[in-house]
Amino acid sequence: MSEINILGEAYKKAKFKAPGHGKRNVQVLKDALVDIDGEMESEMYGKGKVIEDFQEKMAKYLGKESAVFFPSGTMAQQIALRIWCDQKGIKKVAYHPLSHLEIHEEDGLKELHHIQTILLADKERVIELEDVVGLSEEIACLLLELPQREIGGQLPDYKTIEDISAYCKEKGIKLHLDGARLFEILPYYQKTAAEVCSLFDSVYVSFYKGIGGIAGAILAGDKSFTEESKVWKRRHGGDLISLYPYILSADYYFGQRVGNMNQYYQEAKEFALNFNQCHGVSTKPLEPVSNMFHVHFEAPKEELEVILAAIYEETGIGLSSYVREVTKSTSFYEVSIGDMYAQLPKENLKTVFQLLDEKMKTIKTL
Amino acid sequence: MSEINILGEAYKKAKFKAPGHGKRNVQVLKDALVDIDGEMESEMYGKGKVIEDFQEKMAKYLGKESAVFFPSGTMAQQIALRIWCDQKGIKKVAYHPLSHLEIHEEDGLKELHHIQTILLADKERVIELEDVVGLSEEIACLLLELPQREIGGQLPDYKTIEDISAYCKEKGIKLHLDGARLFEILPYYQKTAAEVCSLFDSVYVSFYKGIGGIAGAILAGDKSFTEESKVWKRRHGGDLISLYPYILSADYYFGQRVGNMNQYYQEAKEFALNFNQCHGVSTKPLEPVSNMFHVHFEAPKEELEVILAAIYEETGIGLSSYVREVTKSTSFYEVSIGDMYAQLPKENLKTVFQLLDEKMKTIKTL
Repeated sequence: MSEINILGEAYKKAKFKAPGHGKRNVQVLKDALVDIDGEMESEMYGKGKVIEDFQEKMAKYLGKESAVFFPSGTMAQQIALRIWCDQKGIKKVAYHPLSHLEIHEEDGLKELHHIQTILLADKERVIELEDVVGLSEEIACLLLELPQREIGGQLPDYKTIEDISAYCKEKGIKLHLDGARLFEILPYYQKTAAEVCSLFDSVYVSFYKGIGGIAGAILAGDKSFTEESKVWKRRHGGDLISLYPYILSADYYFGQRVGNMNQYYQEAKEFALNFNQCHGVSTKPLEPVSNMFHVHFEAPKEELEVILAAIYEETGIGLSSYVREVTKSTSFYEVSIGDMYAQLPKENLKTVFQLLDEKMKTIKTL
Repeated sequence: MSEINILGEAYKKAKFKAPGHGKRNVQVLKDALVDIDGEMESEMYGKGKVIEDFQEKMAKYLGKESAVFFPSGTMAQQIALRIWCDQKGIKKVAYHPLSHLEIHEEDGLKELHHIQTILLADKERVIELEDVVGLSEEIACLLLELPQREIGGQLPDYKTIEDISAYCKEKGIKLHLDGARLFEILPYYQKTAAEVCSLFDSVYVSFYKGIGGIAGAILAGDKSFTEESKVWKRRHGGDLISLYPYILSADYYFGQRVGNMNQYYQEAKEFALNFNQCHGVSTKPLEPVSNMFHVHFEAPKEELEVILAAIYEETGIGLSSYVREVTKSTSFYEVSIGDMYAQLPKENLKTVFQLLDEKMKTIKTL
């Protein structure tokens, strides 16, 4: 049996890390500020050059009329759905059963906004056109999360999004994009952000996933929509006197990394391929469609933790700081490729997979 | 007639500023970070050393069992009131008609939490024991703002707070402190923060008023209260992956300035005395009880703007960037004394008041 957090400790000690952009430490903020003139003025409660410039830049990038910077996606998305519900006079929306709003927000949407949710598709797959057409109740808004993070970052065909968008327009259903990882899927679809966003009435993007900033989000759409979102932002307590620490770092890392998304995507495919060649290991999706995927193991969580910790120690490469149980005999973790992957010593990485393959063969419970 | 924003422009150009701690620019953040080791790890969604250490420090300072860092007071206070309402099963609270929640939050308390508010006292004075005893409806919580900002930062007698606290305890009414400027009033009451807070069930303090940080707030109380507040913090979208830019700056400027509050208070009294010796000028309160007060002028807003702009230009001292109309023939602005006041050249300041007195005598509408 493993000791408490044996894996977390081994991960911390590993010289190299396979996922991510590096440590989430204060240096991330310091680096973003180093070239910023100290005389640059803070915005004041949403007004001022630093926030307005970035909002304009992102509106343009996303091909929307207007954009508003929010401290969090949780706040931005609840507000988007609330606005669409109020506009239609129907407090009902639909999304995937594993949407962030359903499982990570302590039911803020229901507790604060009293919005009912209809869960589409199931926990194994993404939402298809049939799910939307098959809705038996009227809804104000459909939220699509691209990629669907909790199932390894799966994506529908692009045609499916176009069809869903056309259907929603026809039926008067607003379509909202949970684009927490929008930048990361553009290489797979071979589309610009503006092209994808043109299929949606409102769009949220995040700056601390693939972009690797500190925190913060953008909500974009028509001007009347974003103006209303500012009122709700104040109600939520998100209209801070100064959001510039997040804005400046979002802008800095956007500049650094938005052009790297294809590299991360290609690396994710290579990385996943290696996992899939190991005994009792498979990735979801089998071939990644972004920089992220899940690695599933035919091994109980605690046995896997011992195996992985030993591999980190021997190769100096940390793969994940945690493992989650799926069943008594299976487990998984999530991978997001960032700047770190390109720095892994190739020989050690080869050894990682040799060891993983060997050790997985020793699992008795298979 | 004045040109558009003649006063704002003159204020910007003035070499010295009477109120505040200096410009709200990026240097404020840079200064707070300069001695922070870049290797210091970010907290993750409310967990980790950087946030937990500061929360513990503030809990101790405020004499409460536990404390939670929030991105804003708007969020923290709505949540405090919601928890007390849920606990009692009565969605009704009472506060001053000029409470921040009533006039600056786009009715978040009502729109998000569906809490009814009863307004106590009136717009000219603070809440007294009689107002609370005279309540005809049952409430879950009474919010006291100390000092009452929108009326110049007035304070009740300390005995009044003790009496209200005892009365609320007897009646099962929770007492919440809007302590946005709590640090600033301790010299007047000659009490520690913990002594004042012991009269309240829950307490909010801010770090960008007298402390001069970037943004952020602490909500403190019993452990069961603060644990519940974390759930609501997530629902509001305030449980960011990283709040450390605000926490580190709050901690830094708390260390720099919490010991200066008596100085600011003494300076505010001196400054107010000078205003009160000018023709047609008076402060509210007449003698400040903290670092803040309002300056009222027997002059129409636009005439006053011209007068003040001329004074800034002649003396190099900016007094305020704005003036608000009270009636057609009277106007006011707010002063908060900070680090800047001590740096004003004494001779120029003397000239400011000579000029103000002279120019106020020329106002024809008196």
